[in-house]
Amino acid sequence: MKYHGNTLIFKRLGIDTHYEYFAYMREDCHVCISEGFEALIRIRITYGHKSIVASLNVIRTALLNQGEISLSESAVHALGIKEHDKVTVSHLQQIDSLSYIRSKIYGNVLSPGQFKKIIKDIVLGNYSNIHLSAFVTACAGNRMSTDEIISLTDAMIESGKKIHWGSSLSKKSGGLIVDKHCIGGLPGNRTTPIIVSIATAFGLTMPKTSSRAITSPAGTADTMEVMTNVNLTLAKIRNVVEKEGGCIAWGSLAKLSPADDKLIKVEKAIDIDSTAQLIASVLSKKVAVGSNHIIIDMPVGETAKLRSIEAANQLKIEMEKVAHVVGIKLKVVITDGSQPVGKGIGPALEARDVLSVLRNEPEAPQDLKERALLLAGELLELSGKVQSGDGNEQARKLLESGMAYEKFMAICKAQGGFHEPPLAKYRREIKSLKSGVVVHVNNRKLAKIAKLAGAPEDKAAGVDFLAPIGAFVKQGDTLYEIHAESKGELAYALEYYNSQSDILTIK
Amino acid sequence: MKYHGNTLIFKRLGIDTHYEYFAYMREDCHVCISEGFEALIRIRITYGHKSIVASLNVIRTALLNQGEISLSESAVHALGIKEHDKVTVSHLQQIDSLSYIRSKIYGNVLSPGQFKKIIKDIVLGNYSNIHLSAFVTACAGNRMSTDEIISLTDAMIESGKKIHWGSSLSKKSGGLIVDKHCIGGLPGNRTTPIIVSIATAFGLTMPKTSSRAITSPAGTADTMEVMTNVNLTLAKIRNVVEKEGGCIAWGSLAKLSPADDKLIKVEKAIDIDSTAQLIASVLSKKVAVGSNHIIIDMPVGETAKLRSIEAANQLKIEMEKVAHVVGIKLKVVITDGSQPVGKGIGPALEARDVLSVLRNEPEAPQDLKERALLLAGELLELSGKVQSGDGNEQARKLLESGMAYEKFMAICKAQGGFHEPPLAKYRREIKSLKSGVVVHVNNRKLAKIAKLAGAPEDKAAGVDFLAPIGAFVKQGDTLYEIHAESKGELAYALEYYNSQSDILTIK
Repeated sequence: MKYHGNTLIFKRLGIDTHYEYFAYMREDCHVCISEGFEALIRIRITYGHKSIVASLNVIRTALLNQGEISLSESAVHALGIKEHDKVTVSHLQQIDSLSYIRSKIYGNVLSPGQFKKIIKDIVLGNYSNIHLSAFVTACAGNRMSTDEIISLTDAMIESGKKIHWGSSLSKKSGGLIVDKHCIGGLPGNRTTPIIVSIATAFGLTMPKTSSRAITSPAGTADTMEVMTNVNLTLAKIRNVVEKEGGCIAWGSLAKLSPADDKLIKVEKAIDIDSTAQLIASVLSKKVAVGSNHIIIDMPVGETAKLRSIEAANQLKIEMEKVAHVVGIKLKVVITDGSQPVGKGIGPALEARDVLSVLRNEPEAPQDLKERALLLAGELLELSGKVQSGDGNEQARKLLESGMAYEKFMAICKAQGGFHEPPLAKYRREIKSLKSGVVVHVNNRKLAKIAKLAGAPEDKAAGVDFLAPIGAFVKQGDTLYEIHAESKGELAYALEYYNSQSDILTIK
Repeated sequence: MKYHGNTLIFKRLGIDTHYEYFAYMREDCHVCISEGFEALIRIRITYGHKSIVASLNVIRTALLNQGEISLSESAVHALGIKEHDKVTVSHLQQIDSLSYIRSKIYGNVLSPGQFKKIIKDIVLGNYSNIHLSAFVTACAGNRMSTDEIISLTDAMIESGKKIHWGSSLSKKSGGLIVDKHCIGGLPGNRTTPIIVSIATAFGLTMPKTSSRAITSPAGTADTMEVMTNVNLTLAKIRNVVEKEGGCIAWGSLAKLSPADDKLIKVEKAIDIDSTAQLIASVLSKKVAVGSNHIIIDMPVGETAKLRSIEAANQLKIEMEKVAHVVGIKLKVVITDGSQPVGKGIGPALEARDVLSVLRNEPEAPQDLKERALLLAGELLELSGKVQSGDGNEQARKLLESGMAYEKFMAICKAQGGFHEPPLAKYRREIKSLKSGVVVHVNNRKLAKIAKLAGAPEDKAAGVDFLAPIGAFVKQGDTLYEIHAESKGELAYALEYYNSQSDILTIK
């Protein structure tokens, strides 16, 4: 023990552990000794006026000198610390809200105040992944009452930033703000840019925030980024929406639901979709942007997120209840989720499909077009500005007249300018080995090929899918084309393709 | 991408992440790119014929060169890999048993086969801490039926090693093997060495395996290690027990329940004691050593593990049911858990108490002695070799005649020789600031002082506690004495002492 008290010198090792904060200390530091490294230790790190809780890893080599400490990249960012700065390390006082999680595990109903404290601690980074997992698990499997889901939604709303629309926009919109959301899992289902264009061309206000891909080949934000800037601050979002009536921005930059960003990652790791978390996640972000009339697209299919009509209906009922309480008029549209939508899977390829539909090109994917029109039509009707039954027709007029395209270009311009999507340099067509009818498509495996080819980081990478269910293909016909920006990545994708037999089923 | 395929060169960084396996890779490796680091990625690492699943951390500095990979210490150990060896990295195929955990989360009852697969994957290290936490949480809060607890216990038994006693011992014991277990949480409650000595002096067979401290200042294995060798292999345990009728060994080296070792750490992190996990943990280890007559000590107190008689009774009922099915005759003894037992808290100090009782010294802590006699008496009666009501008297005779001490020394000799416990070099008496009666003792805070003073790593460190509840103390009397092996650690303990006001309450 060569250092005095609990002060240590920060040395950056550059270890990115994702959200969870980690501290790295030598095994001869007294914190390790007194807490006993046999436990999964959590310690408090203080730097100036800032303080975080971190999980302790012990360094058993000379990577750190006596008196040094390192922190994971997220912790470095949270503290704003620089090389050679001093931190103090102290034993962790109890995190009170963890006792609420234990209470929930034992089947008790939590109060709104308890959910608020839990969400606050999650935002502060006071929970390890073990704690986040316990919270997610304790709230899953229909263990949350409708009141608790409402409390959780409220807590998430409170934890994030909110957009306050100026008086001019409030006047223009008459307080009516529309939105749409898709309960994901379907490659290429990129209806959002088309729906926003139609709704805003009609005159509705639609400040759309979207996510980037977490485990999929592209999120709407990734796709839009190929054509325009999506990294909009709250001020910029307000500015674009005031000008054009709508936007398509990346939601996380706006920090609308910081707790949700962490919980979603843990849910993915356990691979559960807790109804409560899902509803709170979606609705809290909608309330944050002031949306009050929302269409929810629920694709149902064997390899989609919702695998049965029953699951979709159950989610629908609960979601409608919570929406009602938080002041949102909501309509759920259950759609077909058996195969990819459009042709492109990957940011640029999906952007090409979107533009093709907006430009009314003859080769535009009709399934994407019709799906967008269905949802846009429902949205127009939900707004009360179009009579029931006329929505689809109205939406079609706005799209086919070119008005939607015009609006889309204006929104892109307001966000920072429009660019045509790039085309990947390396492409390989996958041919059918036999003749027959396509009867099944494995969405997850197609998505995996697109990711191995480089999507979403490599914008032009992905898969162009040409053989939808029901299509008759001859031996040698192209089923899909893999796009990549490097030979190596094309090789990875092909290696995976060669190892799988059931990506498409032809009979 | 300067490396070919998925082969990387191992470089040791010496990062100890505890049980969970971590891999460290540069951000420009294709695994990071294709899986998307936005997710909490798990990958498969293969080295020769061995293979593990690890969580991915990304290195954003020059800590690793192109083509290099590092692994956490536990992963290095599991693979047996050396510097510059080659590994291959591959995408993770689905871990099937995770779907059973999801099923449990959704309220389904799991089959014996499903528990077996879950426990097998845990032993292999295929679960991240997120998955372990989800499993622990899904099984907590009375969500396990008695049948499921039996399945879990069976799965844990199957996952570990078992002791097969030779024919000579089987003949000698007549198949009767006794044991005791304490549902922990009480500092200084070191009755085990005394009970084993009495039971074996009586002629019973008692192959006792104990744990080391996880978050406490000493486990029985830590205390025994001060006096003899506890790192016994299965073969050595068999040898000692054949010779002396009993042993007091460290259980983990014997690998009796490898899944349990991991689950316990996660339970501590969430701070829940799942009834199901607790029962499976205790009983699986007992079955592994062939025990069939067991006394369970359940101390109940505000700062003990079991905080109410109701909680103890609930655990008792469930434990008796499961014990019956797995062929164990079990008796639960509910005891007082309101304050430490004996004087010593810490390995050597507790060993001194144990020896003092065994040697019938006049200053021996009477509470420890009477507690050991109570439990030993119950054990003698449970064995059927002593009539009901005579156990305590019989136990007392064996102790006070010195026969138990003789047997203890023989067991120590058989395990590797006996040593007198050391006395710490640095000691500080804590004096009472006022006169009055001790009315309350905070077990957790006293334990913390002992740990800050260096226990259990520093064997002689800890607290000698002299003011039990009900004692009348005068201002200036010694309440307890802190023992440490270094000045620095004595200072840490005193710093904590000075920051707390309610370690002892005197009125």
